[in-house]
Amino acid sequence: MKQIFYNTQHCPVGAFASFTLGAKGGKGGLGLELAGPACENIWIGCEDRSGLHAEALPFFADALAGETQFGIDKQTPGSGAIRPFAAGDIVRELSAGKDTWIAGDLRFTIFTQAPKIPDPELEDSEPLRTALVPAVLCELVIDNRHGQDCRRVFFGWQASDVRGAMRCVDSAHTTGIVQGTSKGFFGAAGHWVAGQGFRVEDILDAVKQREAGRLRHGIGTVCALVAEVPAGGISVLHLVAGFWSPGIVTTGLPCQYWYSRWWSGIEDVAEFALSHTEALTKAAKDADEWVGKSGLSRERRWMLSQALHSYYGSTQLLEETSRPGIPVWVVNEGEYRMMNTMDLTVDMFFYEIKRHPWTVRSVLEQFLRYYSTKDCLGITFRHDMGVANAFSPPGVSVYEQPHRRGCFSFMCMEELVNWVLCAIGYARIANDIDWLHENRKVIEECMASLIARDHLEDSASLGIMQFDSDRCEGGYEITTYDSLDQSLGRARGSLYLAVKTWAAWLALEWNYQLWEQPETAARMHEKAEKTASSITKVFQARNHFIPALLDGSCKSATIPAIEGLVFPWLIFGDDLLKKDGPFGELVSVLGQHLNTVMLARCRFGNGAWKLSESSDNSWLSKIYLCQAIAEKILQWKDPEGDQADKAHQAWLLDEENSFYAWSDQMLSGKVCGSRYYPRGVTAVLWLK
Amino acid sequence: MKQIFYNTQHCPVGAFASFTLGAKGGKGGLGLELAGPACENIWIGCEDRSGLHAEALPFFADALAGETQFGIDKQTPGSGAIRPFAAGDIVRELSAGKDTWIAGDLRFTIFTQAPKIPDPELEDSEPLRTALVPAVLCELVIDNRHGQDCRRVFFGWQASDVRGAMRCVDSAHTTGIVQGTSKGFFGAAGHWVAGQGFRVEDILDAVKQREAGRLRHGIGTVCALVAEVPAGGISVLHLVAGFWSPGIVTTGLPCQYWYSRWWSGIEDVAEFALSHTEALTKAAKDADEWVGKSGLSRERRWMLSQALHSYYGSTQLLEETSRPGIPVWVVNEGEYRMMNTMDLTVDMFFYEIKRHPWTVRSVLEQFLRYYSTKDCLGITFRHDMGVANAFSPPGVSVYEQPHRRGCFSFMCMEELVNWVLCAIGYARIANDIDWLHENRKVIEECMASLIARDHLEDSASLGIMQFDSDRCEGGYEITTYDSLDQSLGRARGSLYLAVKTWAAWLALEWNYQLWEQPETAARMHEKAEKTASSITKVFQARNHFIPALLDGSCKSATIPAIEGLVFPWLIFGDDLLKKDGPFGELVSVLGQHLNTVMLARCRFGNGAWKLSESSDNSWLSKIYLCQAIAEKILQWKDPEGDQADKAHQAWLLDEENSFYAWSDQMLSGKVCGSRYYPRGVTAVLWLK
Repeated sequence: MKQIFYNTQHCPVGAFASFTLGAKGGKGGLGLELAGPACENIWIGCEDRSGLHAEALPFFADALAGETQFGIDKQTPGSGAIRPFAAGDIVRELSAGKDTWIAGDLRFTIFTQAPKIPDPELEDSEPLRTALVPAVLCELVIDNRHGQDCRRVFFGWQASDVRGAMRCVDSAHTTGIVQGTSKGFFGAAGHWVAGQGFRVEDILDAVKQREAGRLRHGIGTVCALVAEVPAGGISVLHLVAGFWSPGIVTTGLPCQYWYSRWWSGIEDVAEFALSHTEALTKAAKDADEWVGKSGLSRERRWMLSQALHSYYGSTQLLEETSRPGIPVWVVNEGEYRMMNTMDLTVDMFFYEIKRHPWTVRSVLEQFLRYYSTKDCLGITFRHDMGVANAFSPPGVSVYEQPHRRGCFSFMCMEELVNWVLCAIGYARIANDIDWLHENRKVIEECMASLIARDHLEDSASLGIMQFDSDRCEGGYEITTYDSLDQSLGRARGSLYLAVKTWAAWLALEWNYQLWEQPETAARMHEKAEKTASSITKVFQARNHFIPALLDGSCKSATIPAIEGLVFPWLIFGDDLLKKDGPFGELVSVLGQHLNTVMLARCRFGNGAWKLSESSDNSWLSKIYLCQAIAEKILQWKDPEGDQADKAHQAWLLDEENSFYAWSDQMLSGKVCGSRYYPRGVTAVLWLK
Repeated sequence: MKQIFYNTQHCPVGAFASFTLGAKGGKGGLGLELAGPACENIWIGCEDRSGLHAEALPFFADALAGETQFGIDKQTPGSGAIRPFAAGDIVRELSAGKDTWIAGDLRFTIFTQAPKIPDPELEDSEPLRTALVPAVLCELVIDNRHGQDCRRVFFGWQASDVRGAMRCVDSAHTTGIVQGTSKGFFGAAGHWVAGQGFRVEDILDAVKQREAGRLRHGIGTVCALVAEVPAGGISVLHLVAGFWSPGIVTTGLPCQYWYSRWWSGIEDVAEFALSHTEALTKAAKDADEWVGKSGLSRERRWMLSQALHSYYGSTQLLEETSRPGIPVWVVNEGEYRMMNTMDLTVDMFFYEIKRHPWTVRSVLEQFLRYYSTKDCLGITFRHDMGVANAFSPPGVSVYEQPHRRGCFSFMCMEELVNWVLCAIGYARIANDIDWLHENRKVIEECMASLIARDHLEDSASLGIMQFDSDRCEGGYEITTYDSLDQSLGRARGSLYLAVKTWAAWLALEWNYQLWEQPETAARMHEKAEKTASSITKVFQARNHFIPALLDGSCKSATIPAIEGLVFPWLIFGDDLLKKDGPFGELVSVLGQHLNTVMLARCRFGNGAWKLSESSDNSWLSKIYLCQAIAEKILQWKDPEGDQADKAHQAWLLDEENSFYAWSDQMLSGKVCGSRYYPRGVTAVLWLK
């Protein structure tokens, strides 16, 4: 049977918030700034046609704990208990903009956006507010054409937050169930009744019996919105999940949410969202059309959608209290919640540059202002800006430590290359040449630093990283593949990083051509040639393969060797990559390498991609990226057809894994890190 | 062996906050607005004399989870691991103002206050701020007279809050380890170094090796303050636990913490506390002297201290944003967190009236303004004002529901009697006669309502509750003993409530004498006589006992029959209670009743008091209260000596129970409700 029980994050943009739903039991709910699902009970259902029983989607477990606290015996569910719909009676469909469950006479849909967002520094408009409203629209459709009586439909919720009680809200335009001041569900006033108690069943019964005195038991740990739908027709009801986190929310660098300039509280947010249901539905439809018209396979469409949903759950749009009006975009790193990890920024670039390029600029500028430092080799950028709303002191990441030769070491070269690629890529694609000019001095420093990390003397230059940062204090630098072995984990001599470095030289070449500095441009071209030569010369013609470390100290076969190809292709078009172009040999060698490693060495048994043959640790975001490069740049066709995509989807749908919505890091197909993660939007490259 | 592992709440006044510590393992920590312990790891220790090992009090469990998230293998504790002191090597002593652990060369003390607090409406002074600072002072003493080298002493912490990362803080005057913006530990700048990582061991090592680069690993889930103490002497170091919850913290009635008018953030709070260590130590000493000079037994001193500590953890001093300058005192109901439950207010009255009588007035006024309503019988007061920072709509409690005949029913009579007793008691003891005058109309309404709940026609009046509120809609009213059986749970005809009603008539008599309305005063006296007569006439002379329900429908033996005696005794002195006084017969009958029930019917096997012979549910707060009444008013002497006190203490020290610090409701000695509870301060009556 098709697996329909998996969590998906349904998220507003930039609110670091998620209405997670889909795994069986009390595994979803409203999460604000969390590292994983809130694990709350949600009851979405309606009375059956007989009116004797109520049925709901199976997103709840036992909710009786609250009452037993009072020394009252736990009751066994009686005949009035809400029954979960049987798995076989539920149909679920996830797309980029919608997640829909159909069961019995009920259809429940959560709409989300993947909007093209205008730059908030330049405009404040209705579309901007709609794109950034910290709310998620839901729709309940009840087909009561065959019912004899009016039926009650309900949306119940038991919040898990340890601070702040649940409560019912009746405002002029909305009816809501809220926990504290920060999270809640709302419907339009007049359409819903809000109740509270220890069981949804009790609230339903109070509504049915028209007993207002029993409707709200304020000590109850469960709230529900209840509506009555008439017999003989189909009723459509809207709800919104709202989030609100006011005031200064970060330390280190005091910031507030951008949205707090527009609304005054969660009720206000809900009112806005409920009065913009058309725009929000339209935005979801736009997202669906965008992905839908791509002709992607079912598996890829699903994975891209799932990844998109998780990406937005990690996003946060802030502004510093001391610099109002400047958007501060933060992507929190999934379960780790590190803020704007630079080696994720470079992968999410492919998505952000299409939908909201100003977020790329925002992150680059934050790195420049606060998180660039100089080591003995020149300027570099720190791994991240902090963790879970705690900005680090300037120049400090929460991740990097000295003396390491693996996880938690420094990534000076990787992040420098990443910043250069994102900066020039942003300027070229967003056509923001002014921005590049403004940062002329930094670009020059970056170039100098890149050269120093290779070799200051041209005669010794190899076009690749030859020196570790002194910040390592005896350890060595690593790459974004931090918990993988040396084949991809070590930075110095890394094939993966060499190809990215090659792309960085080319980006700088383009940049200096733009600035009409032909000599510097030519020098960058030379550097790129040196890099290409350093790679091609260790290509083993006999077995069509390049070792993972160019010095031969690690001979693993790795797929991400090809990663760097994406940048010239995306930023400057195909010319640089042509077989008869200036780097024809490099491209050809990488193509042969890919062919070789994909034949057998870099596969799991089920056909899934194994980034390095010497490790069972594989990253889905990087697989998506390399798939796009292989197919679109290297014109490689998987001889196993869509077997790999099916295997990758199966990883995400695995019962344990799927609790975390979209996750990146898989150890032989089991999530071993990077859960609930934003990086899967590399899949957007499938669309190009 | 003496039981030394039990949680105690170490709490500022009015901050709804607790530094809970004492149970073995990661069971304590910093809780803000929580229903129970935060369950955090705390490492308090120092290097041993050899300098090779570090030892700590055993308030931590495994803290490695954070690192395994990154796919890094969990390490087995090596030889460098911090060793917990063996239970047998630890001495602990708890008093009203201090909690001290001694182990090896280490002494750790937490100081707390039980201050006489000036009325914040009338003054803003240094003593007031010191009494209300949301911080708790700690002291570490290291005896290094026999050490050869300097030794490192440490205070490590792993916060459990799901929002907001841990971080180190260096401000001009303090060094701190903080979680988010709301909780942290601080020392004076210059004395401590703050570090962060995945293990306290790593932080200690970085300090020892003088490696600043490894001291702060920002992604780490553990922080520690580390100091070095020189060889050859005794070092005394101070720390404070600080709390901070800014802005509007409540819903329904928007309020902020009173303290937020004085400080700007947690660093500011810490700085104040660290510059007032003398005053804070003095306040703790005052509390100790107050309780110490009482001549209480060890068991009673300990229980009173434990109860006092838990009481303050539930307290909250707020002000409404719309009525600044008016103190809003809230006592949250322990694990239930109901706000200002009136039937707790009346029991905590005995304590509050001694230390801060204005808090009694504050609660009475809040009830008047927002939570008094009229039912068919007249004015009454709701059970509570809301739950966990969510104020209910005016006139609504979160507890009361119609159709009930037990827990969650209405308490109209109980709360009316309670409000009258507190109001007149407050005016008399605090000598605030003006306040009584200002509330003349309400007192009149209360009298009328009391009369109506007995009977409007004098001929049918029995001086006791004869009618249930129409709010019950067919159910019946209950008392504060809500989860007990009818013997104490039912309000109408209740012996327990009758004696309290008798006290209310007497309070009103005093009040009308004061107002020079002799006719009304005489009428109240008559009512009291009727009540007395209704009780004495069902006294069973044969077996010296009064049935729990005066109509004879429940014949259980109950101890709280005598509860009401406390009010005339406390408020108006002994005259009313003399054997040859106007109520000599009632007092004599109640004395005989007590004698009878205590002989055998109201005891557990171990000598502990059983409030009702027909239930195993017993409340410690009420036992303390009845002990004081029995001994001080009825001159009853327990033939079993201090056996009962020992049994009651053993309940609280039971391994499972003691996790919740002080708890009220015990089912055959096992906590079954009312955990982490404020009501135990009834024990203060032992002091009188």
